[in-house]
Amino acid sequence: MQNTTTLPNGTQVISQHIPGIQSVALGIWLQHGSRHEAPHQAGYTHLLEHLLFKGTKQHSATELATHFAAMGGQINAQTGRELTALYGLVTADKAGELLSLLLEVYLAPAFSEADVVHERQIVLQEMALGSDQEDAILAQIWPSNAQPTLQNATAAMLHDYWRENVQTCRLWITAAGAVRHDDLLERCTELSNFPKGQVPEQQSPQFVPVCHQIDNLSSQVQLTWVFPAPPFASPLLPVYIIANHLLAGSTVSRLYQALRLDRPLVYGVQGRLECYTDAGLWWIQTVVPVQHLTICRQRVETVWQTLAATGPTSAELACTLAHLQARVQLEADDSQATMERLAREAIYLGEIRTPASYLAQLESVGDIREIMQVAWKNRAYFEG
Amino acid sequence: MQNTTTLPNGTQVISQHIPGIQSVALGIWLQHGSRHEAPHQAGYTHLLEHLLFKGTKQHSATELATHFAAMGGQINAQTGRELTALYGLVTADKAGELLSLLLEVYLAPAFSEADVVHERQIVLQEMALGSDQEDAILAQIWPSNAQPTLQNATAAMLHDYWRENVQTCRLWITAAGAVRHDDLLERCTELSNFPKGQVPEQQSPQFVPVCHQIDNLSSQVQLTWVFPAPPFASPLLPVYIIANHLLAGSTVSRLYQALRLDRPLVYGVQGRLECYTDAGLWWIQTVVPVQHLTICRQRVETVWQTLAATGPTSAELACTLAHLQARVQLEADDSQATMERLAREAIYLGEIRTPASYLAQLESVGDIREIMQVAWKNRAYFEG
Repeated sequence: MQNTTTLPNGTQVISQHIPGIQSVALGIWLQHGSRHEAPHQAGYTHLLEHLLFKGTKQHSATELATHFAAMGGQINAQTGRELTALYGLVTADKAGELLSLLLEVYLAPAFSEADVVHERQIVLQEMALGSDQEDAILAQIWPSNAQPTLQNATAAMLHDYWRENVQTCRLWITAAGAVRHDDLLERCTELSNFPKGQVPEQQSPQFVPVCHQIDNLSSQVQLTWVFPAPPFASPLLPVYIIANHLLAGSTVSRLYQALRLDRPLVYGVQGRLECYTDAGLWWIQTVVPVQHLTICRQRVETVWQTLAATGPTSAELACTLAHLQARVQLEADDSQATMERLAREAIYLGEIRTPASYLAQLESVGDIREIMQVAWKNRAYFEG
Repeated sequence: MQNTTTLPNGTQVISQHIPGIQSVALGIWLQHGSRHEAPHQAGYTHLLEHLLFKGTKQHSATELATHFAAMGGQINAQTGRELTALYGLVTADKAGELLSLLLEVYLAPAFSEADVVHERQIVLQEMALGSDQEDAILAQIWPSNAQPTLQNATAAMLHDYWRENVQTCRLWITAAGAVRHDDLLERCTELSNFPKGQVPEQQSPQFVPVCHQIDNLSSQVQLTWVFPAPPFASPLLPVYIIANHLLAGSTVSRLYQALRLDRPLVYGVQGRLECYTDAGLWWIQTVVPVQHLTICRQRVETVWQTLAATGPTSAELACTLAHLQARVQLEADDSQATMERLAREAIYLGEIRTPASYLAQLESVGDIREIMQVAWKNRAYFEG
């Protein structure tokens, strides 16, 4: 299914051909994120993401923008806690050119002093407004204090940071769709001048307990339960995926039924798993009108305890497995989702799973009751 | 490319096979929206959308939710000014079952009194919070006053409304992806009991001039220019599409360059065309820090006047056409976007365009200057 090539400097180029479609989703992925910043460099990765498309040594910002616009796809970047990515979606004939331009942006960014001043304003403004970039809950549980360091960042400091911390990362290039592996490899010659990529050093995350939050803008309260979860590569993760889906993953989930269908206490309920190399978080979130706060909290607790005590019915479990199986099949058509999955599996698992092996893991989940009981006892990050 | 069948009652079933993919996006589309509501029934369509998945004469809400969840895709509904749609994305083997269930929801909804009371609360709450469902600008330009009528709506009134105004609509069923046309037709037998669908009567929309808005939650001002635009089927629309793209459609557009790249006055700028059977709106929108309001407004005016006076460079025009061409190609892989395009073209144009004929229309656009000059003179919906 996939072609994987490891270049001399450790970079992996992974492509997956999806027959019948015309587009290619392509990304450059780095194992580098905000958790790898030193305290005096907090926020640099995010600011650098903003600066990336501001020009390179070969092309001005306008020239880059013109090239990307003519490709027609979305070209973008994201920075997270552990990963940074530059990526795009283009028609097949543009995939090689997209990779060359993204590599140029990565290998030879310009970062002028004027751009640093401008984009710093924008980033600080985003932070002041409450960032769209980062999940607000995650920002509370795993805080980073970027504001003061960004105020003092200069172009020279950012260039040093990029050269020393980002260009030395291990790199993954993943592509999915109407892609030719050889075309990608041809575009990677410049990477041979770069040192062997390193896996970053990191310390365990220091999660901070959070309370449920009051949204001051309305009479709605954001009510969140947060639990520890296993890392991405843990064999326990499938148990959490099933448990989360049974609780909050669809309109037939226990919490959706209890909070929305039986009596509409909340507009919706969602559950989410966020997994890293060495840790993970699981949260269940609702937005509740103030007058329903107490009953909503009681119901969540009751629903949780019931499911943790008796487990799902066999019909519920079958519906959950059918849903997750269909989701895997639907994702196989989606070049962007596939491109991202290839990167996360290569980085976190060291291999690309077959959809069948992933589904087999989900199907083999025997019992969710024990982990639900443990999670409830360890809901250390929630203070009601 | 497409298969189209017109059933005896006027319903059109249109499918487009996309080779190589496993999913099917499928929707039931009605030419009915909030503009077809009588004043004393304002808001009914949106409330009814909320009630649709609450059960039918054959299946309870939980049974419906279980069926949909096991399909694994997103099943949803939308109501707009002119169109209502029920739709989903599922794997190929589930397409027939999805169509049967969506038709059941349309033909035999339950709408219990208890559900009306519950969902009315939710809809009124959405309105009070500032709806996510509807574009805030559009809600100002083309207002509807649904709150008082919804307060008094009963299940019996909603049943009558559904039967008299929605089930009598002309219906379009569109599907794209790994779809077999015959499977869809087989599922449509129940439609033969329904009367021939009608095209709704409607009066020309009464647009209301709006001012730029102040966002009270921050020091940001939302600055919007609104212009009249042609209807969906107008041969003039391609001129507006090109003009909008040149002005605000990419990172290389004139306004993005002037407001974001040269000096970051705003975080972003967007242009949007909203087209109906008999009218259309074009708007350019930015969110501006208060201190940049005056200069931002001047720059937009200058950029507009310059482009309207001299037209684009040939390089700019070529980049715009390349971008729009690539977008059409990328959309061809996207079963959901294709399903929606089939519906809009069938409803608004009475035929499905080939991508080549649409691109030829864009390529034949000679001059955007005149419509830009006319639009600026008719910016009746903006008061600076």
